[in-house]
Amino acid sequence: MFKAKAYSAAGRTSPLCPAVIPRRDPTDQDVQIEILFCGICHSDLHYARDEWHDVMPAVYPCVPGHEIVGRVTKVGSAVTRYKVGDVVGVGCLVDSDRTCPNCRAGLEQFCPGTVLTYGSPDRHGTAPVTYGGYSDSIVVDERFVVRVPSNLDLAAAAPLLCAGITTYSPMRHWKVGPGKKVGVVGLGGLGHMGVKFAHAFGVHTVVFTTSPGKTDDALRLGANEVVVSKNANEMQKHTGSFDFILDCVAAPHDVNAYIQLLTRDGTLTMVGAPEKPLPVSVFGLIFGRRSFSGSPIGGLAETQEMLDFCGRNNITADVEVIPIQKVNEAYERMTRSDVKYRFTIDMASLKGE
Amino acid sequence: MFKAKAYSAAGRTSPLCPAVIPRRDPTDQDVQIEILFCGICHSDLHYARDEWHDVMPAVYPCVPGHEIVGRVTKVGSAVTRYKVGDVVGVGCLVDSDRTCPNCRAGLEQFCPGTVLTYGSPDRHGTAPVTYGGYSDSIVVDERFVVRVPSNLDLAAAAPLLCAGITTYSPMRHWKVGPGKKVGVVGLGGLGHMGVKFAHAFGVHTVVFTTSPGKTDDALRLGANEVVVSKNANEMQKHTGSFDFILDCVAAPHDVNAYIQLLTRDGTLTMVGAPEKPLPVSVFGLIFGRRSFSGSPIGGLAETQEMLDFCGRNNITADVEVIPIQKVNEAYERMTRSDVKYRFTIDMASLKGE
Repeated sequence: MFKAKAYSAAGRTSPLCPAVIPRRDPTDQDVQIEILFCGICHSDLHYARDEWHDVMPAVYPCVPGHEIVGRVTKVGSAVTRYKVGDVVGVGCLVDSDRTCPNCRAGLEQFCPGTVLTYGSPDRHGTAPVTYGGYSDSIVVDERFVVRVPSNLDLAAAAPLLCAGITTYSPMRHWKVGPGKKVGVVGLGGLGHMGVKFAHAFGVHTVVFTTSPGKTDDALRLGANEVVVSKNANEMQKHTGSFDFILDCVAAPHDVNAYIQLLTRDGTLTMVGAPEKPLPVSVFGLIFGRRSFSGSPIGGLAETQEMLDFCGRNNITADVEVIPIQKVNEAYERMTRSDVKYRFTIDMASLKGE
Repeated sequence: MFKAKAYSAAGRTSPLCPAVIPRRDPTDQDVQIEILFCGICHSDLHYARDEWHDVMPAVYPCVPGHEIVGRVTKVGSAVTRYKVGDVVGVGCLVDSDRTCPNCRAGLEQFCPGTVLTYGSPDRHGTAPVTYGGYSDSIVVDERFVVRVPSNLDLAAAAPLLCAGITTYSPMRHWKVGPGKKVGVVGLGGLGHMGVKFAHAFGVHTVVFTTSPGKTDDALRLGANEVVVSKNANEMQKHTGSFDFILDCVAAPHDVNAYIQLLTRDGTLTMVGAPEKPLPVSVFGLIFGRRSFSGSPIGGLAETQEMLDFCGRNNITADVEVIPIQKVNEAYERMTRSDVKYRFTIDMASLKGE
């Protein structure tokens, strides 16, 4: 066991503060990583403030962070995939049961025994729960570590580990590709990645936003069209025309307005996770054999595939890099959607603490 | 033009009464049919009482009925598929635009130009709107006529034209077959057909019902298990285990309790059509990449496929045959779910009117 520097929250209403946390010494299968950058995901904020209490109650102290990019500093004796100096990533998972049908299918995200990067019971007993990436280091089984392409800007690559895979995976699953028309609802951390991927997949990409001011940015990110969703006329023009819509909005909103825009057998997939149930018109689904679905992150193999795709296509997130001392301020700004489009913590800032 | 006997409703609160309606003389492509039996679908009641006003406002007088079985009495000069004396069926559609991508794919049910068997503008100008099967005859383009296998009981075959295809089609579309576990929610007109088809498709079939009294009947119809949905413990035992659930309930109900029972990538499909939107938990969809979808009837080719399947497997509906004079009483009993499981009108009873 060794001590690591981190930022942790002591309770639902507490700010994140400097802390010292225990990390295990690497086992034979483990990789020890010096964290260089960690993206700030909305889940971090929801979890730290216990806003998902009914689904995933927070355990304190909590150390959020699951968009981790770093450098390998030590490897266990049985580690074969990574060596000291490699640039690697860690996303939302640090373990699973490895034997269930989902794990065997490479879909660890659906394993009933997943260990989340933060807030899951720590099987190694190092701490009551796992501690995430708002820290100077982390120790993870090599199986849950991915390789980050060397051509990518590392600060901007960090959000790929959650925002990236969360938007990439459903588009792959629902076969988004040339000839299709795809919508992305909400241009935030998830949405802006959705637009970049949809564009890279060669589809006609339409961004739906409530903010006319985001139009130029949406086009710059790769959208072919931008629809201001408050404009009913503009919405109606697209009725029955979308093969796939990725809904990245976590606030309550009218999904039926988007379901109407799907073509026969079209799918609207939620990657934003509104806390309360959303009212869904069954008629809107029946007429068109449409589906309303949801998707979480991806499995490890697909996360690596996504990173390799990003390497080939030079895709990263648009980030605002901050020192960790500004994390509480960043949380406040996120609640006002005041970020384009993701905060990434430069973990060098933790050295002075 | 000739006169046909029928039962029609004059308004939202009017009972169905004897009436004389115009039918067109068969054109070259038309088949004239003597109606022998017509099933009573819940849609008939909803439409006659204008309960779906916002989606499909009723036009009066209305003649419901879209589960039609009869005998060909006359054919147009260009008709090739049918001859006088053939036993045929007509379902929910009597025409479509025939040229859109859906029609070309044999999925006329999704054509934007469908002509419903009752209540759609009548393109032939015989009447303001089409009149359905509560009548002694109907004239339909041969393309919208299907053949009824000769071994089936005709009264019991009539509901196949709507309740049958509505439950058969989604199970085919979502690939219900051996090795799968399938749920059917609600044991009524649609549900009892769903159970028969699921059983015939060789899947492990579980019926969900609020009425413990329906257990024996569900097993008789082909269910392997019956779950009383009010029993939370019984429900929980099935968490994450269903590949497909067919939800046949048109009343408001908690679909999230069923979505939780789906396995990864499982689909819950609504064929019941609740008037008001249903609240859907997005977390329940995301964790499991599950889908909540809907499905209407099938296309003409699939309706014929379904009837042929029923012929080979001797599948019909469980019906209570009534004279047309009891149709209003039947409606009242349907609102109390007092029918096992479908009323069929013996149209011979119309001769005396």
